[in-house]
Amino acid sequence: MSNLHEECGVFGIYNDRQADLASDCYYALSALQHRGQESAGITVNERGLLRTHKDAGLVQDVFTKDVMDYLGAGNMAVGHVRYGTTGGNTRANCQPLEVNHQKGKLALAHNGNLTNAYDLRNRLELSGAIFHSTSDTETIAYMITRARLKTPSIEKAVSSAMDEIEGAYSLVLMSSTKLIAVRDPNGVRPLCYGKTQDGTYVVASESCALLAVGAAFIRDIDPGEIVIFTQDGVESDRSHCGILPQKTCVFEYIYFARPDSEIDGISVHASRMMAGRILAKDRPVDADLVIGVPDSGLDAALGYAQESGIPYGIGLIKNKYIGRTFISPGQEERIDMVHMKLQPVRHALNGKRIVLLDDSIVRGTTSRGIISMIREAGAKEIHLRICAPPFIHP
Amino acid sequence: MSNLHEECGVFGIYNDRQADLASDCYYALSALQHRGQESAGITVNERGLLRTHKDAGLVQDVFTKDVMDYLGAGNMAVGHVRYGTTGGNTRANCQPLEVNHQKGKLALAHNGNLTNAYDLRNRLELSGAIFHSTSDTETIAYMITRARLKTPSIEKAVSSAMDEIEGAYSLVLMSSTKLIAVRDPNGVRPLCYGKTQDGTYVVASESCALLAVGAAFIRDIDPGEIVIFTQDGVESDRSHCGILPQKTCVFEYIYFARPDSEIDGISVHASRMMAGRILAKDRPVDADLVIGVPDSGLDAALGYAQESGIPYGIGLIKNKYIGRTFISPGQEERIDMVHMKLQPVRHALNGKRIVLLDDSIVRGTTSRGIISMIREAGAKEIHLRICAPPFIHP
Amino acid sequence: MSNLHEECGVFGIYNDRQADLASDCYYALSALQHRGQESAGITVNERGLLRTHKDAGLVQDVFTKDVMDYLGAGNMAVGHVRYGTTGGNTRANCQPLEVNHQKGKLALAHNGNLTNAYDLRNRLELSGAIFHSTSDTETIAYMITRARLKTPSIEKAVSSAMDEIEGAYSLVLMSSTKLIAVRDPNGVRPLCYGKTQDGTYVVASESCALLAVGAAFIRDIDPGEIVIFTQDGVESDRSHCGILPQKTCVFEYIYFARPDSEIDGISVHASRMMAGRILAKDRPVDADLVIGVPDSGLDAALGYAQESGIPYGIGLIKNKYIGRTFISPGQEERIDMVHMKLQPVRHALNGKRIVLLDDSIVRGTTSRGIISMIREAGAKEIHLRICAPPFIHP
Amino acid sequence: MSNLHEECGVFGIYNDRQADLASDCYYALSALQHRGQESAGITVNERGLLRTHKDAGLVQDVFTKDVMDYLGAGNMAVGHVRYGTTGGNTRANCQPLEVNHQKGKLALAHNGNLTNAYDLRNRLELSGAIFHSTSDTETIAYMITRARLKTPSIEKAVSSAMDEIEGAYSLVLMSSTKLIAVRDPNGVRPLCYGKTQDGTYVVASESCALLAVGAAFIRDIDPGEIVIFTQDGVESDRSHCGILPQKTCVFEYIYFARPDSEIDGISVHASRMMAGRILAKDRPVDADLVIGVPDSGLDAALGYAQESGIPYGIGLIKNKYIGRTFISPGQEERIDMVHMKLQPVRHALNGKRIVLLDDSIVRGTTSRGIISMIREAGAKEIHLRICAPPFIHP
Repeated sequence: MSNLHEECGVFGIYNDRQADLASDCYYALSALQHRGQESAGITVNERGLLRTHKDAGLVQDVFTKDVMDYLGAGNMAVGHVRYGTTGGNTRANCQPLEVNHQKGKLALAHNGNLTNAYDLRNRLELSGAIFHSTSDTETIAYMITRARLKTPSIEKAVSSAMDEIEGAYSLVLMSSTKLIAVRDPNGVRPLCYGKTQDGTYVVASESCALLAVGAAFIRDIDPGEIVIFTQDGVESDRSHCGILPQKTCVFEYIYFARPDSEIDGISVHASRMMAGRILAKDRPVDADLVIGVPDSGLDAALGYAQESGIPYGIGLIKNKYIGRTFISPGQEERIDMVHMKLQPVRHALNGKRIVLLDDSIVRGTTSRGIISMIREAGAKEIHLRICAPPFIHP
Repeated sequence: MSNLHEECGVFGIYNDRQADLASDCYYALSALQHRGQESAGITVNERGLLRTHKDAGLVQDVFTKDVMDYLGAGNMAVGHVRYGTTGGNTRANCQPLEVNHQKGKLALAHNGNLTNAYDLRNRLELSGAIFHSTSDTETIAYMITRARLKTPSIEKAVSSAMDEIEGAYSLVLMSSTKLIAVRDPNGVRPLCYGKTQDGTYVVASESCALLAVGAAFIRDIDPGEIVIFTQDGVESDRSHCGILPQKTCVFEYIYFARPDSEIDGISVHASRMMAGRILAKDRPVDADLVIGVPDSGLDAALGYAQESGIPYGIGLIKNKYIGRTFISPGQEERIDMVHMKLQPVRHALNGKRIVLLDDSIVRGTTSRGIISMIREAGAKEIHLRICAPPFIHP
Repeated sequence: MSNLHEECGVFGIYNDRQADLASDCYYALSALQHRGQESAGITVNERGLLRTHKDAGLVQDVFTKDVMDYLGAGNMAVGHVRYGTTGGNTRANCQPLEVNHQKGKLALAHNGNLTNAYDLRNRLELSGAIFHSTSDTETIAYMITRARLKTPSIEKAVSSAMDEIEGAYSLVLMSSTKLIAVRDPNGVRPLCYGKTQDGTYVVASESCALLAVGAAFIRDIDPGEIVIFTQDGVESDRSHCGILPQKTCVFEYIYFARPDSEIDGISVHASRMMAGRILAKDRPVDADLVIGVPDSGLDAALGYAQESGIPYGIGLIKNKYIGRTFISPGQEERIDMVHMKLQPVRHALNGKRIVLLDDSIVRGTTSRGIISMIREAGAKEIHLRICAPPFIHP
Repeated sequence: MSNLHEECGVFGIYNDRQADLASDCYYALSALQHRGQESAGITVNERGLLRTHKDAGLVQDVFTKDVMDYLGAGNMAVGHVRYGTTGGNTRANCQPLEVNHQKGKLALAHNGNLTNAYDLRNRLELSGAIFHSTSDTETIAYMITRARLKTPSIEKAVSSAMDEIEGAYSLVLMSSTKLIAVRDPNGVRPLCYGKTQDGTYVVASESCALLAVGAAFIRDIDPGEIVIFTQDGVESDRSHCGILPQKTCVFEYIYFARPDSEIDGISVHASRMMAGRILAKDRPVDADLVIGVPDSGLDAALGYAQESGIPYGIGLIKNKYIGRTFISPGQEERIDMVHMKLQPVRHALNGKRIVLLDDSIVRGTTSRGIISMIREAGAKEIHLRICAPPFIHP
């Protein structure tokens, strides 16, 4: 379950002309912000000249007007948002990673976790590599650039590196002249692409980010596929496709992804509603109202309500203004954070028997806090239903 | 309708001991943040010594750890959040307003609009008053402190000032030794109070802010009532009660207030659901799905669905990470802001006849953007239902 | 001596056309920054519309590009820098003070200390005034605006207020249409004006600020004089001149003012050199080298050296990068701040008998630190000579 | 002359116990700030655990209280300040550079310029190296860590890397357990070390930084020398000493270094005075006053004055508050920056024949601005004397 803490969002855009692609990255990363709030970064490629800005913080905090002016116009760009893990040397782990190698420049944005990162890193270090960060992204950058020394093109180098990299990775990378999107052979993390009316190609972790820049969804990148965007159009290298079984991470459907995204042909919203319907069949209960924990439990609650015939209700309100919060030491015990972020709608809950749909049991302490909050609001009974596997994605 | 742009949230806390009341203000103002995102302020009263910090921005941005350390402990505090209007001399209009007068100190937080502000201001200026801001708050502070010159107590001065002030005002104010809460005789803006288990009194614009600091709701302040919190307990001056008819602003129920708040005995959530039910009866339509514009249209959609028997659905997703946004000039036309904040759930909408519940027609351009977004997502028909008066609060 | 902590710099500019006067204020306030590093502020007057920005910090920190854009163009402006006193409610004490009164608007910048501020304030409060700050500036603003109720013009109101205000004040103030400069009848604080080649009038605490905006010095404002700049040119009201004896503060010459300024016809540099010469005559000593404590002790050291015939040397280097400094608690004892700001030139001092010129005995602890530093650098003897009155300005 | 733009300051500290070495770095880097104002960085080593913070800006801006808390205590630390060159990817070029390699960790701070950087970089890239920055520091880090793969210790790796690295470099580097100081065989850039009374060893670019942390100067690091600080004390590897001729950069004496520093046994102050004396002999002139351009021209002016017998004067005042400056486009022509930073002391210059000592002809436009400023202040004649080689360090 440790990969729950390694979620990220990646984005790429390719255009044959000079355009304000940094702004498109800004909008797209805002739409992907739910996948990572720790750091944000954009690399703009202006005909081979790369400019990167990345820092800890939300998209809207990292990209000020001055930064946007610095990034300027370009014909390609790559963007990244990163999930919050640990503090400390955060900045060195921000993405995209921009490096210079023997054959030119490379900017790389990555979502996923390698399973053989330690081995690869050790091998690289033994042959003289030095590492500036602890991220898998740097390992991947090394694997690709090392392969590039012996291959005629960056896409061949990517393919060659994929022979050795194991685990989950959705990559968007950029050489001086090409934008490349890659999804690991298991297809663990999502990746799709689309096109705007003016012919700009767009790659993103989730389809919601395509819409955010006015692009129409074309299709998901297939597991193992390498898609190359150049001035000659779109090419696909499918040499790593069909080798390994598809293993799209079920937590994408349960709570990572936005409900308005569709991943591998399945609507996240529909998937969550279906999970609710299955729970209603498998674990029925006699009750007065079905409510969901916002935001990711709402769809399942609606499915449960429809299947069971119990009315759907709005029982919890989320305070969207609570972000990074100052908590004074003395307050920690008195004010629990669940109460800061969620509050019950007493009028809807009072005197009722409640079915509560939550997205997972990962955050057990939170569920407990929510239940006691609903009880204090007057609920007579509370029946918790968790959308964890195997109740989802049957 | 201009008062739509003058919404604010006020808060006060009274405690007989020294305590970290600034933190309570922080949590309460976060819970009231939906009432105003332009500026935030807190005044802490430490046994007669007042310390104020206020600035443009969200609660979490204005109150850093250093600021909280500066505010320190106290036995009373007043807080304020202000709705964003125009830029410019924003800082001078931030609240609470802290002033020194002949009989001591006064800190004042205000929500509302005076109808005779111009006359009062003119009268005050003719008798030598100078104004640092354009806010009604400063006018009220003058009226109270002028009255105080001729009255034996601050509460009498407030009562005396109420004889002359006309319009809407919910006030929380603080002298060296007293916390006072006042609601105008029409009761236009909400105001209520509660108490924590350790005996701390709390006043707030909405009941959701009482819960945020662990206080139990006691009751609404009545229209025209002055409630005084001192070391001797709670007193009430009702000399201005029952004189004018109650005119609680209907927009509080429609979209200002949080659905988990109860104002004058009526649940905001229930009020919105009722508006949806009435719309379903008055303006029925044959359709496949009822959806609401988040956040304030969701309750009405649920009411409409329950009354009409048409299924309730989740059709629009709100991006909670879009706040103050950098928009490049060139992008303004291409990327419309509605798309930045809202995106359709295609799977839920495609091929369906949709009833769409929105909170008002104030923002007509937004409704148009939403409708075209839903149409692009494949909806066959779209029927807009607006929760404006008289459909709400009949 | 408490007025040592109330030093400030004031500035005003008048122009008959729209121009970027905020930038001129920026440069002038930078030239006056030595008079106050706590806060900085500018009010621009664009044909009667006033815009103010002021905050704690140095000129270069307070006035960012965004702020300068906000201030915009105007035909008049007033600026202020304030000496650092105590923390806390700093922001309320920033200047210029901008207020609205019965006859219009007023922006006011003030350098000085009233001696009857308490009485005036009490009188004002008794007649209904409220105060937002603890500064004398607000008292002066009240006195002028109250007088304005009964006088036909702002300059008459200023004159009338001067009948009641006692103490030290150099003011630059601005109504919608006029810029006014005032110096108290004793002429305690300096104030002068000049003109640029394009006809812009400029008022400043010190002549060095005139040069900073390319203006030629015209003359000092006389003690008690009111100078009015309008579209009709420059007028002078001398009704308060010649009543009280001139008492220009000697510390202006000793260490407040910049040596390149001339105050009341006397060069600060020349004044300090003269003090050194007098010390050399009155307190001669047999020594090898005369050095000064930078920056304000250097001129006196040069004077002492010239008079005594002992060579002048450079014995102490000031670190200009030490400003507001983080000091860890544990370090405070180990690293003394004198060592952070000043370091000895061992080669110049070693084995020598030193005469050390310092600007005053106010900061006695500092002198002790400097002396021990010079001793550690190898000086055989150290003779401290202080430029305090009566050795200066005989 | 391009190396004029590559000046930096390095610092290292070694202690056998845990101590607040970050604060020592802070003070030392403040003392070295004149060598570089673009960026600042500190790496603290807490028994093998490295923490780095670095960013664009002055020491006092980069190292806030929060950052100092993050850096915490350690038994070794390395610091760096960097000269401002061009904008853009500044952050990637900040130092110290912290990397992980096959044998552990390395933090590196560097002052200098390699002459064979391009060749080394190309060789490294061909063998699979990738670069995150354009700095020589990264090349040096690669050379040392590559050598480390084949050598038994970090100091042997440094020695081995020195066989291949050509050009100017003063390095302070840190492995998990050792602090190492290195000076290139020509000794182009200065480097020295000292010791505090409690046994802490300190390495710095200039001796003034030793004093800033209370350390006594021990000696300069010799050209080609490697000095290793461990828990066993101080060791020296002199295998690269005496091979190449010493070529200490003359500009260190002319204007890089602080006058209170001593480099390779020569006082910077004395060196500049000597340059002034030589100029007085070689290029005498009949004049009334000798003045210097602050700060680096003052010592030479004093030397010229003493040798020539013409009185020394204070003719120019430097505004120490002018740093990074907002300049509005319209103002650029009107307000020249020379006037912002320097102003003439009219009283000292008026009617006089002036000898003006400046530090170099590098900034010719500036000299021209200064001369015209002095002329406007009334000087009858101005004779410019430049302390460029060969007039210095004969």
